[in-house]
Amino acid sequence: MDKVANISVVMVGAGNLATHLAKNLLNKGFSVVQVYSRTEASAKTLATQIGAEYTTQITDLHPEAQLYICSLKDDALLQLIPQLTMNNPDALWLHTAGSIPMQVWAGHAQRYGVLYPLQTFSKHRQVKFSEIPFFVEANNPTDLSLIEQVAQKLCDKVYRADSEQRKGLHLAAVFACNFTNHLYALANELLIEHHLPFEALLPLIDETARKVHQLSPHEAQTGPAVRYDRQVMDNHLAMLNDAPDMQRIYQLLSESIHNRNK
Amino acid sequence: MDKVANISVVMVGAGNLATHLAKNLLNKGFSVVQVYSRTEASAKTLATQIGAEYTTQITDLHPEAQLYICSLKDDALLQLIPQLTMNNPDALWLHTAGSIPMQVWAGHAQRYGVLYPLQTFSKHRQVKFSEIPFFVEANNPTDLSLIEQVAQKLCDKVYRADSEQRKGLHLAAVFACNFTNHLYALANELLIEHHLPFEALLPLIDETARKVHQLSPHEAQTGPAVRYDRQVMDNHLAMLNDAPDMQRIYQLLSESIHNRNK
Repeated sequence: MDKVANISVVMVGAGNLATHLAKNLLNKGFSVVQVYSRTEASAKTLATQIGAEYTTQITDLHPEAQLYICSLKDDALLQLIPQLTMNNPDALWLHTAGSIPMQVWAGHAQRYGVLYPLQTFSKHRQVKFSEIPFFVEANNPTDLSLIEQVAQKLCDKVYRADSEQRKGLHLAAVFACNFTNHLYALANELLIEHHLPFEALLPLIDETARKVHQLSPHEAQTGPAVRYDRQVMDNHLAMLNDAPDMQRIYQLLSESIHNRNK
Repeated sequence: MDKVANISVVMVGAGNLATHLAKNLLNKGFSVVQVYSRTEASAKTLATQIGAEYTTQITDLHPEAQLYICSLKDDALLQLIPQLTMNNPDALWLHTAGSIPMQVWAGHAQRYGVLYPLQTFSKHRQVKFSEIPFFVEANNPTDLSLIEQVAQKLCDKVYRADSEQRKGLHLAAVFACNFTNHLYALANELLIEHHLPFEALLPLIDETARKVHQLSPHEAQTGPAVRYDRQVMDNHLAMLNDAPDMQRIYQLLSESIHNRNK
């Protein structure tokens, strides 16, 4: 018998990540007994999809589940922790936030931890859940091992990371995902200006991402800044005269590349 | 009979791109008759691989080929054009550089153009040539159509782009490839500092690239800057106190994201 999968789970939150988590827990044989959301429509939608009960009242949270996974907005989580945990202070309480330390649970629950999936979620975009790396933390070794086993049911890659590491990870993700996507957006502006379709850039974007599976980003660096080709760079800066923020970004990133590669 | 593939080609240059081009031309049935490189070892290596003659002397360039593809460093190309074209001014002369205008050929050849593959090439890294988009330009409609047919033999996507468009494309590629890779490098520094492996970030990097196949980069934008979450951003900036250039990059990119999404 599979002990881990027999754990009864309450999903606190019914947003994008909570929905993905709940559905995948169900698929892996966990029994998700209840969904909480402040918004009735959200609670009901998710609960219906996974055959669970739902509530919009924290006081009605299931009092005897074994695992409570809280996937709320950062502010809401911090505000609700005292009320949430009152229902079942002996259960295992988890949050799913990258930038919130585990210790926010201290004093409110006995057993607690973090289950953080590192991925970018957008509406209208399906993500392969099993490919998402999960980062786990707990306030005691038994529960760390338990969370790890739960995570291993959901995905292929599970890492232990304390709150400091998770903070570093979250910041690294801003650079590698949010800022990278913005560079795609700036590139797209240049293409639009030159009447070229964005799709023409996709093979280059793909190869840039694929390359760092094989080479380190340092080894993979190419372009005028790494060669410090002043003539090409000056031409590029002149082309950006009407877009001062892109000009500053060009200059700053080129200097940063040059300083790390000379 | 396939007229285009019967064209006889001289490859001027024996670097990374010239090598890929020559091998793929051969595979598609073109006859590559000669390789030129200033460096004998390079000329010989490529020539041997494709069963062509080779020379290190511009004066010995084959006088009767139909197509000369010049894949040299920008400086070398500009310097050599007058000598190169003297051998066969009636042939079709092409260069493969993103940031050099087609008109560098004017006055030296009658028929000329550009065959520019948009991709990032690194040593020790194989690229699927057929997936690279090619951008073509010529000084007359007949040769434009000819170059287009040559390019279509080599790859799936061929675009016409004049020299201004190609300049814009090259700049866009610096943002979407060179700068993006540098953001990966900065993210890697943060991971190293927090004792986490770079591979933990790869699924996020991949999804960030995949996402813009389906959504525009503007639609795909996520993260603290797009929400303008001052608290998260201030925490991140404080974490970068010992890395002033990363702090400036964080600030500038966050402002740029915010300005374009408010």
